[in-house]
Amino acid sequence: MNPIQTAIRRGRVEVQDIESDVLRGNPAGDPHMRRVPVYLPPAYDSQPRRRFPVVFVLTGFTGRGRMLLNDAPWSPALDDRMDALIAAGSPETILVMPDCYTRFGGSQYVDSTATGRYETHLVEELVPWVDGRYRTLATRDHRGVAGKSSGGFGAMRLGMLHPDVFGALACHSGDMLFEYCYQVDFPRACSTIQQAGGVRRFLEAFQAKPQKPKDDLLTLNIVAMAACYSPEREAELGVGLPFDLATGLPRPDVFSRWLEFDPLRLLPTRADALRSLRLLYLDCGTKDEFHLHHGARAFTAELSRLGIAHTYEEFEDGHMNVSYRYDQSLPALARALSE
Amino acid sequence: MNPIQTAIRRGRVEVQDIESDVLRGNPAGDPHMRRVPVYLPPAYDSQPRRRFPVVFVLTGFTGRGRMLLNDAPWSPALDDRMDALIAAGSPETILVMPDCYTRFGGSQYVDSTATGRYETHLVEELVPWVDGRYRTLATRDHRGVAGKSSGGFGAMRLGMLHPDVFGALACHSGDMLFEYCYQVDFPRACSTIQQAGGVRRFLEAFQAKPQKPKDDLLTLNIVAMAACYSPEREAELGVGLPFDLATGLPRPDVFSRWLEFDPLRLLPTRADALRSLRLLYLDCGTKDEFHLHHGARAFTAELSRLGIAHTYEEFEDGHMNVSYRYDQSLPALARALSE
Amino acid sequence: MNPIQTAIRRGRVEVQDIESDVLRGNPAGDPHMRRVPVYLPPAYDSQPRRRFPVVFVLTGFTGRGRMLLNDAPWSPALDDRMDALIAAGSPETILVMPDCYTRFGGSQYVDSTATGRYETHLVEELVPWVDGRYRTLATRDHRGVAGKSSGGFGAMRLGMLHPDVFGALACHSGDMLFEYCYQVDFPRACSTIQQAGGVRRFLEAFQAKPQKPKDDLLTLNIVAMAACYSPEREAELGVGLPFDLATGLPRPDVFSRWLEFDPLRLLPTRADALRSLRLLYLDCGTKDEFHLHHGARAFTAELSRLGIAHTYEEFEDGHMNVSYRYDQSLPALARALSE
Amino acid sequence: MNPIQTAIRRGRVEVQDIESDVLRGNPAGDPHMRRVPVYLPPAYDSQPRRRFPVVFVLTGFTGRGRMLLNDAPWSPALDDRMDALIAAGSPETILVMPDCYTRFGGSQYVDSTATGRYETHLVEELVPWVDGRYRTLATRDHRGVAGKSSGGFGAMRLGMLHPDVFGALACHSGDMLFEYCYQVDFPRACSTIQQAGGVRRFLEAFQAKPQKPKDDLLTLNIVAMAACYSPEREAELGVGLPFDLATGLPRPDVFSRWLEFDPLRLLPTRADALRSLRLLYLDCGTKDEFHLHHGARAFTAELSRLGIAHTYEEFEDGHMNVSYRYDQSLPALARALSE
Repeated sequence: MNPIQTAIRRGRVEVQDIESDVLRGNPAGDPHMRRVPVYLPPAYDSQPRRRFPVVFVLTGFTGRGRMLLNDAPWSPALDDRMDALIAAGSPETILVMPDCYTRFGGSQYVDSTATGRYETHLVEELVPWVDGRYRTLATRDHRGVAGKSSGGFGAMRLGMLHPDVFGALACHSGDMLFEYCYQVDFPRACSTIQQAGGVRRFLEAFQAKPQKPKDDLLTLNIVAMAACYSPEREAELGVGLPFDLATGLPRPDVFSRWLEFDPLRLLPTRADALRSLRLLYLDCGTKDEFHLHHGARAFTAELSRLGIAHTYEEFEDGHMNVSYRYDQSLPALARALSE
Repeated sequence: MNPIQTAIRRGRVEVQDIESDVLRGNPAGDPHMRRVPVYLPPAYDSQPRRRFPVVFVLTGFTGRGRMLLNDAPWSPALDDRMDALIAAGSPETILVMPDCYTRFGGSQYVDSTATGRYETHLVEELVPWVDGRYRTLATRDHRGVAGKSSGGFGAMRLGMLHPDVFGALACHSGDMLFEYCYQVDFPRACSTIQQAGGVRRFLEAFQAKPQKPKDDLLTLNIVAMAACYSPEREAELGVGLPFDLATGLPRPDVFSRWLEFDPLRLLPTRADALRSLRLLYLDCGTKDEFHLHHGARAFTAELSRLGIAHTYEEFEDGHMNVSYRYDQSLPALARALSE
Repeated sequence: MNPIQTAIRRGRVEVQDIESDVLRGNPAGDPHMRRVPVYLPPAYDSQPRRRFPVVFVLTGFTGRGRMLLNDAPWSPALDDRMDALIAAGSPETILVMPDCYTRFGGSQYVDSTATGRYETHLVEELVPWVDGRYRTLATRDHRGVAGKSSGGFGAMRLGMLHPDVFGALACHSGDMLFEYCYQVDFPRACSTIQQAGGVRRFLEAFQAKPQKPKDDLLTLNIVAMAACYSPEREAELGVGLPFDLATGLPRPDVFSRWLEFDPLRLLPTRADALRSLRLLYLDCGTKDEFHLHHGARAFTAELSRLGIAHTYEEFEDGHMNVSYRYDQSLPALARALSE
Repeated sequence: MNPIQTAIRRGRVEVQDIESDVLRGNPAGDPHMRRVPVYLPPAYDSQPRRRFPVVFVLTGFTGRGRMLLNDAPWSPALDDRMDALIAAGSPETILVMPDCYTRFGGSQYVDSTATGRYETHLVEELVPWVDGRYRTLATRDHRGVAGKSSGGFGAMRLGMLHPDVFGALACHSGDMLFEYCYQVDFPRACSTIQQAGGVRRFLEAFQAKPQKPKDDLLTLNIVAMAACYSPEREAELGVGLPFDLATGLPRPDVFSRWLEFDPLRLLPTRADALRSLRLLYLDCGTKDEFHLHHGARAFTAELSRLGIAHTYEEFEDGHMNVSYRYDQSLPALARALSE
């Protein structure tokens, strides 16, 4: 139903094993060797002197780069998708698929004393590594970042904080308006961790289950966000939870630390960075199960108020299985980064 | 499977149509004629001079008194249940099943400018009406109030605020810790009302649907709570929503009005009332889908801290279909109110 | 939202305790005392000499007569519904709500050596009892039978087999085309009973569970149908299952006994009975979760082919919570039985 | 949580584009160019003269070979899995991942006039192609076939029918006892196709939906099985459905054609083939949602009765996300095929 188009020019994928100095000895005990697939477009081989723009594509929670290459019956892998977009007229671009996975399920692409310095790894280590190994156009004007969900959050935040590194970004259904996308899961996560007997035991039991119950998955998400946004050195595994495990009550002081990472809260102080982008693309489904359309609307309303150019699209769908949205963002990024 | 026990002595139910002056012309346009079933225990007829304690039993959201008499294949109606409890040794007691239903699905048994004066109706109108018509022991020491869910909230709040009227209370899975039981539904309710085109259109569309979708039901709940806890005269239907329909953002000022009704917040100022009760009974399921076990634990921890006598039980179940818990509370209330 | 209409003339309900000789000592050990509510229309009291048609209303699986009086927030109880229909112009009719519940969850209103003689109880015992006690028009031309789901099956089958007793019938979403409505659940029921350790242990464990899992409910349904359609004296509890508990394989010979009860199979031999009815009403939802619309379509196609007058309606809904369909059938039956 | 083990010896994957003469001009219009990943174990490169056994791994419904390489957060891709198994002591083996996908979602690895000659493609075309291009041990004693679900069915049937080609097989949760695994979905599939307006329109509408509803997926499965098991040249798209779209009634004659493909029915005539295998491995989850444990139990009971050696394991899980079961079958196959 989604036959591989064999008639078209095809790019290829190199899978690199990268040894990270930044991640070595990270507090969560995750590997510092990381496998990073790199998509090279058709012209990369046929035009051996040409340099290309590059887009870092960030996966969502529980993902690592390789998963972007997963094939599905009605949704092509990222390499097949990019081949088809290029065949349809998109400028050619390199795609890099970082691995910022952690034992908690993800890193949100931030530095944290509970997980490790993933923001630093990405910006200061992986970007130069790619520029050193591939024929990239190695300036911010030709380097973009994109992602969905936690990857959309990562793309937005990295674009806001590192406008010298990234000149364009695409944020699909990205985490924002944390009161809506995270806070609603606190009572259930609290119950689940209480029943498991703490964060460590919860993670161990989770690992051991062949099938992961829905409540466990949302709890893992909250634990991971706590590890990223509110690490506490004295807490179990260094994870400062936004509720008190003993009483079950909310800890608003902890949640206020989370809000410092909310793109919606960051926006007023990062307007200049966003204004400097060659492309600022956002979209969200109108039925997003994590309620991210509320955040996207509030964010883009504020962009408009501040006079910051952007593209915003809504589509009639939910949060899952929407990688077809890359058909919108990747050609737009490729064009913006090719000029 | 739950054969009607025909060998036991049976009470009977009178269904009364009551004309309420308090509810006449209520702002929501609901009827001021109310049908109130009254359960009279077996001895009521056999001992025609004896007086009995009375318990007001409050239904949950979307309920009215008559529903307590609904028969289910594996859960007896309230009259059959009380017959069986009396046969098993419970003191005999009258049960009154008020109708405080509104167009929003319920009244929370409070006075509100959006719904009507249901607290007043119950305390100042229905209580004396019952005492005037039935052979009750007509003092607070022999009058109790009980309920589940919104009815549990009602029982707890009425017991706190009217210790002169009610001398004992039972709160099953009652609404409290509003941050957990209500706030988590705000983003979804906001989306649903936005899509419907406002509160009035939402209610009209809801009424017209033969089957009520889950999202609509949780939205109705939030609309009703807003009508009860944060009425605003200038808002559509007088309902002050805890989020802004235009922007989708939370309105913390509105939610702070809700919190004034949270039993957990009321507790510090109502300790004396609770201390005066002949029975203060609470229970909650450990898997309550509305997370009410967190509230119940925090509430009873505070009771203990304040040295207020109470009975608290947890059971391994969720929020729905737990009317078997009345098997615990009703005999305890009957005993406390018979002494 | 569904305010009780207090301005209209109201009928009343008498709840009768009936001692059944037919059911005394039934093989399933169910009570032979049965509680049967009888709805008497407004004119019954105001016109003390007038006689009325009567409709026996049969509940679905896991129901007994009293449940037809259950009140729901957006669906009135049968008495309130009939009051409103009469207020809107329906002829007045008595409604009788039999109790043919069994330990298996129902009797399908048939005689079985595993459950008891419920068909006989209804036709030979309850019908004369009603005629003896109430001012009925005591002939088949003024006596109807109606029901939904298993009650629709019962109404259809009783109308087919006892045209001398019932002169009109209404079958809402009634069981038929057993290959579709029952057979699909055999593998799951087989697994569930195997895991429980047999029929008796399954039933005991089922009884003990405060909440009934979905798989248990469909299994109970299959056990009950087996008790009704394929009793085997030597089998556990007398229930001949349509699969072999030891091997898990289907037993087509048992299922062929079931098919003898399928209205679709009965139809060719009962055409004269159906042709004699004053009203033959069927309806079904187009999204019936038990696939009963396939059966209803096949049945009515055959009625048309045989030139048997009938009314058939489809509606856009599923199998559950469709008692609003009685708004169509009850006035039609009342009219047909009043002529 | 499932860190890539970088310290171990790693194999590699070659992705081959294969042009199939057998599939050229197939009736379903699917491509005859197929992308087939081939896993080469670590020793393949380090021991350039050594020959290896080979296992053909067949994906389930809606899959093609590449999907076996999909990475998941808690379930490694097939290449990573095989690397780890070899590191833990498994003999080294080549793995071939055929692509037998069709517009219907799959081919069941059979020849059909509605889909194409996939059995022939696999046995007569792909097997020699692999032997011609890779250093295989090119005899049936060193060639195995394995798969899950539809792939398990394919492995079992190909092993039964082609004992000269395959000397060992593993069938995980394979389709069998078709009365249970397929027939239960007929009424729902019938409704869905009726509503869509026929098979062609159903497929077109399915393709166009960004998210595939559950009912559509089960319907696609039934359509595909019909295309494979009961093709009819005169039917729409050549697919002979096991029910009549006009009346909705079952077509038992068509289903009897399906049963000719049921491994349980094939078994009596293929006992010698199965007896000749070096390994006959089956397993199934005890909670298989397609009820395949009933089939597996009946099948292995018959194997035992016939004295055919086999390994059968049950595990406490369902049908989905059980690729961890390859940890049992692949080393066993590698051992059996290495001797």
